Amino acid sequence: MLELLTVRMELPAETNIVIGQSHFIKTVEDIYEAVATTAPQARFGLAFNESSGACLVRCEGNDPVLRETAVRNAQALAAGHVFVLVIQNAYPINLLNAIRNVPEVCSIFCATANPIEVVVARSEQGQGVLGVIDGSSPRGVEREADVAWRHDLLRKIGYKR
Amino acid sequence: MLELLTVRMELPAETNIVIGQSHFIKTVEDIYEAVATTAPQARFGLAFNESSGACLVRCEGNDPVLRETAVRNAQALAAGHVFVLVIQNAYPINLLNAIRNVPEVCSIFCATANPIEVVVARSEQGQGVLGVIDGSSPRGVEREADVAWRHDLLRKIGYKR
Amino acid sequence: MLELLTVRMELPAETNIVIGQSHFIKTVEDIYEAVATTAPQARFGLAFNESSGACLVRCEGNDPVLRETAVRNAQALAAGHVFVLVIQNAYPINLLNAIRNVPEVCSIFCATANPIEVVVARSEQGQGVLGVIDGSSPRGVEREADVAWRHDLLRKIGYKR
Amino acid sequence: MLELLTVRMELPAETNIVIGQSHFIKTVEDIYEAVATTAPQARFGLAFNESSGACLVRCEGNDPVLRETAVRNAQALAAGHVFVLVIQNAYPINLLNAIRNVPEVCSIFCATANPIEVVVARSEQGQGVLGVIDGSSPRGVEREADVAWRHDLLRKIGYKR
Amino acid sequence: MLELLTVRMELPAETNIVIGQSHFIKTVEDIYEAVATTAPQARFGLAFNESSGACLVRCEGNDPVLRETAVRNAQALAAGHVFVLVIQNAYPINLLNAIRNVPEVCSIFCATANPIEVVVARSEQGQGVLGVIDGSSPRGVEREADVAWRHDLLRKIGYKR
Amino acid sequence: MLELLTVRMELPAETNIVIGQSHFIKTVEDIYEAVATTAPQARFGLAFNESSGACLVRCEGNDPVLRETAVRNAQALAAGHVFVLVIQNAYPINLLNAIRNVPEVCSIFCATANPIEVVVARSEQGQGVLGVIDGSSPRGVEREADVAWRHDLLRKIGYKR
Repeated sequence: MLELLTVRMELPAETNIVIGQSHFIKTVEDIYEAVATTAPQARFGLAFNESSGACLVRCEGNDPVLRETAVRNAQALAAGHVFVLVIQNAYPINLLNAIRNVPEVCSIFCATANPIEVVVARSEQGQGVLGVIDGSSPRGVEREADVAWRHDLLRKIGYKR
Repeated sequence: MLELLTVRMELPAETNIVIGQSHFIKTVEDIYEAVATTAPQARFGLAFNESSGACLVRCEGNDPVLRETAVRNAQALAAGHVFVLVIQNAYPINLLNAIRNVPEVCSIFCATANPIEVVVARSEQGQGVLGVIDGSSPRGVEREADVAWRHDLLRKIGYKR
Repeated sequence: MLELLTVRMELPAETNIVIGQSHFIKTVEDIYEAVATTAPQARFGLAFNESSGACLVRCEGNDPVLRETAVRNAQALAAGHVFVLVIQNAYPINLLNAIRNVPEVCSIFCATANPIEVVVARSEQGQGVLGVIDGSSPRGVEREADVAWRHDLLRKIGYKR
Repeated sequence: MLELLTVRMELPAETNIVIGQSHFIKTVEDIYEAVATTAPQARFGLAFNESSGACLVRCEGNDPVLRETAVRNAQALAAGHVFVLVIQNAYPINLLNAIRNVPEVCSIFCATANPIEVVVARSEQGQGVLGVIDGSSPRGVEREADVAWRHDLLRKIGYKR
Repeated sequence: MLELLTVRMELPAETNIVIGQSHFIKTVEDIYEAVATTAPQARFGLAFNESSGACLVRCEGNDPVLRETAVRNAQALAAGHVFVLVIQNAYPINLLNAIRNVPEVCSIFCATANPIEVVVARSEQGQGVLGVIDGSSPRGVEREADVAWRHDLLRKIGYKR
Repeated sequence: MLELLTVRMELPAETNIVIGQSHFIKTVEDIYEAVATTAPQARFGLAFNESSGACLVRCEGNDPVLRETAVRNAQALAAGHVFVLVIQNAYPINLLNAIRNVPEVCSIFCATANPIEVVVARSEQGQGVLGVIDGSSPRGVEREADVAWRHDLLRKIGYKR
């Protein structure tokens, strides 16, 4: 009775997506506030799959288009207690720790701007996220010149000293 | 040789379940203490699947019936290094951050009072949790009246201002 | 088009492995620093699968042999944005909270010295980790004598009072 | 021009007080929510000294008497950006980590049910908390029987295993 | 031999200051990276008083003027192991949790854009921070209309729902 | 009636001291466990000033000499709810985050191997810590060569990349 699906996330250009498992409808207000107070310059949409009672996709955000994108992604996953955040003008590195501290959040499956397929299990009861295929598989191992490039890049963008 | 199973968790009424991945038998004492000091009013049982040496289900808690429930759920999962917490008179939102801070805990798969099926992989070596089907899939998107209901509910129960 | 694989991790004796999901190549420098400042006595290797652009396995560590081991494991997983840490002379309990605080880390799949099989999904796009089979399934439930043994062991090694 | 004062906190029976340094009026809503979601059974009052603009004592809580108590204590301190939480039916150990995670909180001076004097500095500009005299000075060092008593007490109340 | 001083911090318009106690010269690189990765849009300067060996004010930042401001403030405090962060285009609420997680940081004395006097103790050995006078003392308690104003403000700026 | 004292901490060679404010006698077991599981190679002593009831200095550790040192320092401070940790073969940077997560801990005054004077307030009721004079005041600002030395040192000891 168990079926596996891959669900491709819809992701506009220059947008990151964070997908996680949470519980309780308070999730949408709390992740909203975590993002808004950590990265006030961000534009974002957020959706959470309520999985009992009315079973509605609960949504928040400060950008109507991104909120619709988050909702469509959450509906495509159709997995209870899963949340989807789509965000522009901020990066996951700015705010993952703030999301992790939200007291309803269980775990974060991914944070990425890559093309992303989510592996979903479907039973008669409902659906659940098993994992993500996040971008491409590696094509090699970095060599000395690649290490130098990476090291320089992180300093050029000001993220490391 | 890989087989997928769905394992339904046994969950009494008005009880929440938290399932996670950890390591080391110290997990049972540490999660016990995290729950007992954060939510002293809670009744709970806890089980952890030791996955080397004696390979016993290690258990703790302050309620014998819930401890037995946790043990049966952990045995049904049969996945190494997985823990199961079943709890009454407290909610996951009260204590997920305390569990997350336990130094042996890797991740939390779910926290819920919904009917729950766990997707488990079985190989010749053993079993592992892949994900959870937590309650039902969404049946629609919230509209203005639903947002108002949600907003009011969170204030009526005193969780938000 | 979705295929499931089990990938066995290569793990030398007296070594622990931590596998997780992250994002961005800064992960290798940040986890390096988290481990080096929390457990300066540790020997370790670290690999991270870059999953866009050059798609290289990025690596760090203070032990060349363990770094090669981490790289081979990350290549075997071939899953984008996954990291593998292999570590000697320190235990996961010493440093999981430090790794969890790294701002690029999404989640930690496992931390173990057991034989470990990783369940991986493969699509045309790439691969993703779904979960882990970590050691053996439980063979029984602890009884009074086992509880006493566990309680004593944790105090004998000085981890609990 | 600098004057030191000791300000005795007003503390009803069976009540704990937490005093800290924060910034921004959002503090009162955020600490309210941190307490309400971590210890929903608690009765509490909260006050925060706004220190620019209208310079009002901002207050919250779910118990009017305790809110008034918090306000009087915050007024007595008259120190900018200081908050005072007075709480019944919950203990600081249940919620200090939740308060620490509030993104406006700088530090926590004390958490206690003892008689408490706060050492305050007064200048022409205003006042600031320097530290606390929390209960009594020690009268001796614990001996073997005292260690046994302490060890037993923590297990009898169920806080440690 | 103990003398108390008040040291007024130099704070340009539209700038916030964070003062804390830390240890080890690695503090300047780590707080730099915490700020740069959490609030990449921020302009800031950072200074740390090394208090053994060469005893130099160690400094970092991405804005030379603010770095000089941080250095002058740290020199004025002349307190060992104290750090001063001055920041524009970001607010303390965006980054206090990131600074708190820096493994060398002991505590944060204040985070504010107010006029600020630091109370410093001076002995023959050196100087230490005792506390801060952060803005003005309260002039009253909020009434219903003030609560409504505060509640609205936090929603108008998008920080709360 | 308020008197200020400076209390010099007794600190053996190659030893670090961490002083903080906490509450409840459970502090000694919890900080013991936080240190022992994060830095198992460390030798340490720990003392906590119980400030109600029996008012005893409560102590723990895995090294009798360091435990006595911690006790003498805690007695010298005579401040209620203060703890003192003295530690060898580990550095504060390895374990400050673990101590901060202990649910009874309010704040950490300092972490240092420098000569240290603690500024203590004494009233008729008892004593309280106001702050620390941690090592020497700065004697200058780092120049280019000093920055290079610091940058190199952190990489040579393997703490930064």
